[in-house]
Amino acid sequence: MKALTFILFLFLSCTISSQNYLGDQEDIDMILSNIKDFSISVMSSDYQSIGMAYTVDAKIFPNNMEIIQGREAIIEYWRLPEGVQTKYHKITPEEIKILDKEAYDYGYYEGTTRRSDGSESSWKGKYVIIWRKINQEWKIYLDIWNRIKD
Amino acid sequence: MKALTFILFLFLSCTISSQNYLGDQEDIDMILSNIKDFSISVMSSDYQSIGMAYTVDAKIFPNNMEIIQGREAIIEYWRLPEGVQTKYHKITPEEIKILDKEAYDYGYYEGTTRRSDGSESSWKGKYVIIWRKINQEWKIYLDIWNRIKD
Repeated sequence: MKALTFILFLFLSCTISSQNYLGDQEDIDMILSNIKDFSISVMSSDYQSIGMAYTVDAKIFPNNMEIIQGREAIIEYWRLPEGVQTKYHKITPEEIKILDKEAYDYGYYEGTTRRSDGSESSWKGKYVIIWRKINQEWKIYLDIWNRIKD
Repeated sequence: MKALTFILFLFLSCTISSQNYLGDQEDIDMILSNIKDFSISVMSSDYQSIGMAYTVDAKIFPNNMEIIQGREAIIEYWRLPEGVQTKYHKITPEEIKILDKEAYDYGYYEGTTRRSDGSESSWKGKYVIIWRKINQEWKIYLDIWNRIKD
């Protein structure tokens, strides 16, 4: 009986903590793959790939700034000063829901920045993204986030 | 010719600056009405109405905090200390797009807080909301925002 309770507990834990991905599996897989690639682009300072992750008319909402519109302006937002690098970047989506040619996605992000003097700082936060399917590719249309305090 | 150019300029200005509301007009009007009502609820510290603006499983994403889930927890987030009041609150949606039973909406918010000592502070920011249509009513499912610096 104790074993059964334990198995039930394990099952419920998994159910509660599991992510929630709703919609066509192919679309979900494309978005999950894009999310992984985005972190790789950030860690390798590949600004062209970062730009291509967004629609041409995308909007990003960085804290304390106006809404930044368009791929070129978004690339300039992401561009780090010489010698600064995002050495770690990870996005953990909690829920993705495909709504035909659009999707929403929310979850957590975390990362570590290494400055030119070798010092490092880590940060984490939460985000909401609106995706758009354009020519069979999922691109970020709206991207808003803010921090979680340690 | 000059007059024609001017008229064309006026027309383009209007087109460019106009908000972008896409979808069934009845749905758009319901969401616009909810947005106005939300500000009224905030200004009158009507926490039950604020709570009812959200789905029971809604998530809000305040800056520097964890994601807050569920109507009751959301009401507690919005509850102001005794003597503090939001004397002004306005939401200006830039774009609303209905996607059947869900919708996304982004735009700007602004407000003024009056503290118990009579001092006031004004603030503004930007937001993204995911709406859900439940029993013919549009409710907020995801609500994320951050500030714009003066």
